[in-house]
Order: sequence, then C-alpha cells, then structure tokens
Amino acid sequence: MIQPVRYEGGVLHLLDQRRLPAEERWVACSSVEEVARAIEAMVVRGAPAIGIAAAYGVALAAVRAAAGAASAGSDGPRADEPGQDGRDRQGAASSGDPGTTAGTVAEAVDAAVRRLAATRPTAVNLHWALRRMADRSRELAARGAAPRAVAAALEAEARSIQEEDLAMCLRMAEHGAALLPAGARVLTHCNTGALATGGHGTALGVIRTAWRQGRLRHVWVDETRPLLQGARLTAWELEREGIPHTLIVDGAAAAVMGAGQVDAVLVGADRIAANGDTANKIGTYMLAVLARHHGIPFYVVAPWSTVDPTLPSGDAIPIEQRGADEVRALGGVRWAPAGTAVYNPAFDVTPAALITAIVTDRGVLRPPYREAIAERAAAPAAEGTGPNRAAPPAGGS
Amino acid sequence: MIQPVRYEGGVLHLLDQRRLPAEERWVACSSVEEVARAIEAMVVRGAPAIGIAAAYGVALAAVRAAAGAASAGSDGPRADEPGQDGRDRQGAASSGDPGTTAGTVAEAVDAAVRRLAATRPTAVNLHWALRRMADRSRELAARGAAPRAVAAALEAEARSIQEEDLAMCLRMAEHGAALLPAGARVLTHCNTGALATGGHGTALGVIRTAWRQGRLRHVWVDETRPLLQGARLTAWELEREGIPHTLIVDGAAAAVMGAGQVDAVLVGADRIAANGDTANKIGTYMLAVLARHHGIPFYVVAPWSTVDPTLPSGDAIPIEQRGADEVRALGGVRWAPAGTAVYNPAFDVTPAALITAIVTDRGVLRPPYREAIAERAAAPAAEGTGPNRAAPPAGGS
Repeated sequence: MIQPVRYEGGVLHLLDQRRLPAEERWVACSSVEEVARAIEAMVVRGAPAIGIAAAYGVALAAVRAAAGAASAGSDGPRADEPGQDGRDRQGAASSGDPGTTAGTVAEAVDAAVRRLAATRPTAVNLHWALRRMADRSRELAARGAAPRAVAAALEAEARSIQEEDLAMCLRMAEHGAALLPAGARVLTHCNTGALATGGHGTALGVIRTAWRQGRLRHVWVDETRPLLQGARLTAWELEREGIPHTLIVDGAAAAVMGAGQVDAVLVGADRIAANGDTANKIGTYMLAVLARHHGIPFYVVAPWSTVDPTLPSGDAIPIEQRGADEVRALGGVRWAPAGTAVYNPAFDVTPAALITAIVTDRGVLRPPYREAIAERAAAPAAEGTGPNRAAPPAGGS
Repeated sequence: MIQPVRYEGGVLHLLDQRRLPAEERWVACSSVEEVARAIEAMVVRGAPAIGIAAAYGVALAAVRAAAGAASAGSDGPRADEPGQDGRDRQGAASSGDPGTTAGTVAEAVDAAVRRLAATRPTAVNLHWALRRMADRSRELAARGAAPRAVAAALEAEARSIQEEDLAMCLRMAEHGAALLPAGARVLTHCNTGALATGGHGTALGVIRTAWRQGRLRHVWVDETRPLLQGARLTAWELEREGIPHTLIVDGAAAAVMGAGQVDAVLVGADRIAANGDTANKIGTYMLAVLARHHGIPFYVVAPWSTVDPTLPSGDAIPIEQRGADEVRALGGVRWAPAGTAVYNPAFDVTPAALITAIVTDRGVLRPPYREAIAERAAAPAAEGTGPNRAAPPAGGS
C-alpha cells in the first residue's frame, strides 16, 4: 500500500510528492519546524495527509520535550516554568534543559500547534487534527501524566488519526462506489488518493473501490495545473493499480464531457462550510459548472473532519494564495515573461447548489446540505474530544 | 509592430514561436517542405498566420520552379513535362532542370498546395489561402504568363493576403471594441495577437484597440495548456504594449468569473461552420460554458476566411490530435509516468448557442448564425477568385 507519511523512532518520514513520479525520495523531519516547512513546501499535500503529518509534528514536539525532561531526571509536573515559545523550548529540550517538566511538554505542544496551524490556511482537517492533539494533551496534563507518558500518548493519538483516516476512506469509498452506474467512466481532479490521505484516498478511494467491484470502466485525469498533481500523482497511483485512465489538460474536461464520455465527476475537498459550499483545488469549481451544464453528477468525497460547521458559507473560507512562479515556470524552465503578474489561488469554492452529493464517512449527504450537515454534526460522535470527531465505523448510512 | 512572418528575397523567415519569450529566433525556409514542417511543428501558429505562411510557401515553390526555368533559358510553356511531385520538381528546379516551363511552375504550385494542405487539418484559413493561391496560379496559366511572371504574381498574392489580414484585423478590432463596456475587464485564451495573424490580431486585436480607445481596464490571460500560448505569447505581446494583465491557469477562469472580475470573454477561431459552431484552441468550449453560467458575453473574433460554409455544423469539423508528450512533459522535463495515455486534441468545438456574437471583417454576426452567415456569404466579395474572399474595407457593419 502507498503510504506517504511514516512515523518511526521519533522521526517523521514524508514521501516527497514534489519529486514523484520521477523519484521516490523521503524527507526526514525531527522537529516541528521541519514538519511545518515540509507542509508549506507541499512535500506532503492533500487535506487529510496534511492533518496526519501535523498530528505527528505535535507528537514530535512532545517527544523532544519529554526527552529533555528525561535527560534532566525530572519526570513530574512543575509549575514554575517560564513561558517560552515552542522552538526555543524544543531547542532547550534537545540540549537537555534540566528544567523540562510535564508542564513544558504541554507548552511545547501548544507552540507546535500554533506553528503548524499557520502553514496552510484553507484545509480544515489540519486544524481539526491539531485541535484533537491539543485536546488530548490538555486531558493528559489534567490527569497529571508524566512527560514520557504524554509523549507516548500523543504518538499513539497521531497514529490513531492516521489509522482512522484509512478506515474512513474505505468507508467513504463503499458509499461513493454505490453511487456510480455499472461501467462508469469518471473524471477526477488533483490527487485524492493514498498519497493525499492515510491510505486508499477520498475521491480516488471511490475509484479504487469501484474498480475492485468491477463497476468502473475508465478514469479521465485532469492534469491539475499549476502543480500537476493529476499528471504526476494520480496517474502514478492509477498505473500502479492497473486502472485504465487517460490524462488530459484541465481545459479539455469540457470537451470530454461534451462528447458524452463522463458519467460522474469525483473530487475531494479541503473545507466544507455549514451550507455545503466546498473549497477544493483550483479548477474544481470549473468542473462543477461544466458537470451541471452537461447533466453529469458531481460528487465531493471527504472525511467528516473536512466539514467546518463554524463557517456559514463558502464566502468565509480563507483561500491560500501561492507564488507566481508556480504558474510562470516549472522545474527550472520559465516560459512566461519574468515580470508577468499572476493570480494563483490554490483553491476555489464550489457552491453547494452545484454539488449532487457529499460522500463522507458519516454517510452520503444530499441537499439541502445545511440541514444534512447539522443533522450529522449532532449525531453521536466517537469517543474523543472534538465535536467534529469521526463517527465510529457503525455510523453513517 | 510584431510581425512573425517575413518574406524577403525568396526566403520565408518565421519567428520561432516555440521559443518565445525566452529568445527571438527566426527559422528561414527556402522550400515548401521546410515551410510545411515549420507549420506542423508550430514554429508558426494561429489560423491566419498559418494561412499567410502557407501562401508564401506556395509562392516559394513557384519562385524556385521559375528559377529552374530561367537558368535553363526556357521561359515559355511546354506540354511534354512528366508528372512529378512538388519536392522532386523543386529539387529539379533548383538544380537547374532544363525542362522547367510555365506548365511545371503550375505543377510545382499544385504539389505545394497539396503538401501544405496536409499540415494541419482544423484551421480553414490555411485551405482558404491555398485555394486563393491555386486559383491565382490557374488564372495566370490560362493567360499564358511566363514562369517568372507567375512567380512574381504569386509572391504579390501572398503579400496581399498578409496585408489584407492586417487590414481585416484592424476592422474587426473596431467592431469588437464597440461591443465592450467602458472600463472592460476581459478574459482571453491562447494567443490571437500579432503573432497569430498578419498583425494586430483577432481577439487580441480587439483588446489592443479597446486599450488604445481607453475602454479597457484589465486582461485575464489563460495560460492555455498544453503549449502555453497564453503564458508565453499573449503575456509577451501585452507586456510590450503596456496593457495591464494577469496570468492564470486555465482551471482558474471559473473562479475569476465567479468573483465578478470578467465583463467579456474574447477568443479567436480556427474554423466556423455554417451554423456558427466554432472550433478553436482546446479550452475554448470550457470558457463558453463558464461564460454562459455566469451571464458573461462570449465573443468569437475571426476573419471571414475562417468561416467554412461547406460544413453544416461543428460535428463535421476535423479535430487535430497531437502528441502525448505535449501533455506529459515540457522543455525536457517530464512529469507524468512515461506510459500514461493522453488525449490531446488541439481544438474543441463551441456550439453556436453559447456564442453571443461572432466579430468578422464583414461585421458582427448575431444569432441565428446560419442566416447571418448565409447573408454575409452572399454579400459582394472583393475582386478575387474565391467565393469566400474577404470583403473590401467598406463592407461589413
């Protein structure tokens, strides 16, 4: 199985997705700052995978702070620690600061959460995962857990987030595949596969499961400019699985739909507002308009952690703006004039009205989404700290 | 003025548009085959510019055949020439074949027309220009013109095609600019500028004129994958003119429209069927659907020579399929897996129903297009040979 995020022996290994498929290079992160920079640089990308990496980043901060505490022989809580920011604390911890305590582990966790929350503004899974880690940290602190116990528990929590994500993907894939007609020809955008999640994928997970069920005939893959996640990552995953697919430029999706070659559009999501408006990779809104024009169902596939019930609509979703050279150049080759102004939003917002259904691990949501989301949000959540936590496997319909 | 096609001293110089804007390199063609290959490789591109280059290619064939006749001291018609294809004839002519006559000049012209017609299937201006050159050649042959006189007349005819194209662009630009609101923000696709025409441009010609008239506020430039003519060529032309513009990936056009930032979409055309269906660069149909969804006017700007009244609808327009590596790689950098299947149509067809107006040098056509086109086709054409020839400057409304 493709798994782009691996945590082993206190080091977070990230498959460098910028270099795929040309080479499989791993980036090893042993500090929060390294994890944060890897997320910013899109070494790891895909809303669920970012959340997983960030959770491990928090665990890493706790482990390093606890190691500092252990080397100082101090394993109990102390209240007289000065307030320091996470990077200083980490540095102090790794150099064996004798003052490290369970209290400063909690501080290191808080600093890690702040740093990681600032990496990418649009994906809400990141914030969901960080909140879950922070809540768990506070719970442990309240119980008076020792630094090493806190660190071990946070490592376990991050691992749970990763494993639950895989389980959710498999559940969503079953829900989503059931929506497709036999012999379906689908079109997808960006990469929403194992590389973007804890494994299996969201929209691409539906494609995987539908293929295994014999329901799928063909996949049209948008190359997904500017970073070409479709051409680089989705084509790579589909090739490894032997799923028939054809790569197209993003501008050709309309022609393929117009030729009657698409039975459904499947995309992921980075944030879903309370009314169902959905932020996803730039180009997604284009597909939704085109699908509506051609009478093709348009499905969003995302774990419940992507839903942000605090935002009334898509207008409130912050959209990350990225650098001009992602559009002007590639791999050292620049083609646009150097001074050309570029508008490069990483995401766009698809209004709920254009979405046929939202496939989540809590079941398939249908319009009106405000009601469907409110209902699922109120459903009994799994044991956990956040109101927005994933439902147990039995949940959903 | 930017002029990508220059004919001087029996050599056709083509600005290599594959290398712009990084370098301004010219390709010199002194045979029909060189011109044909330059068109196939897209050294020169843009429907009107292809027609102009092909017309010079035909003139070149006549010049070389006539030079062979002159060096042999034979300037009169002979009827006993064996049938040879154009390349053999050219070779024979340039090596001073003593048998070259006015009759073989006509044969060289016919062979050149056949070779050039096979270069790119979709753009109809190419065929229009070739037909005009062939008709002129036959007319000269019927008059018993001497080889050198035929060659000179065909050079003049090609030059007329180029000069008329510039005049038509200027006329279309006036018609088109009048359709825009004051302070217009427009979105355009591919390159339809001076580089694509005899000068000034079609859709980009409208933009130029509107800017000079003070009616234009901003231009959104689709990068236009796969060959990035927007990023490379349109951005370059706009920068040289000082016209404010912003480059976007093709998938971002929907988001820009959704944000209320576009007052009109302006595109060129490669072929327009009798009912108004329009073939143009892949991605154009996407823009037409998006414009309709957002209530934005969608204008096609093209010389009358782009209209093909012999085709009842867009279904009959042949669509050129291009190589997979245009999508999988760029400038020696490959990003998609080597074996990935690619669908790479150079063009798509926009149904007439999505087109607000078609701006031609014979005036602005409005729906129903079948009637509008039939009426303009029947209008008195300029002196010339083809029924589809451009109207004189006084024509149109």
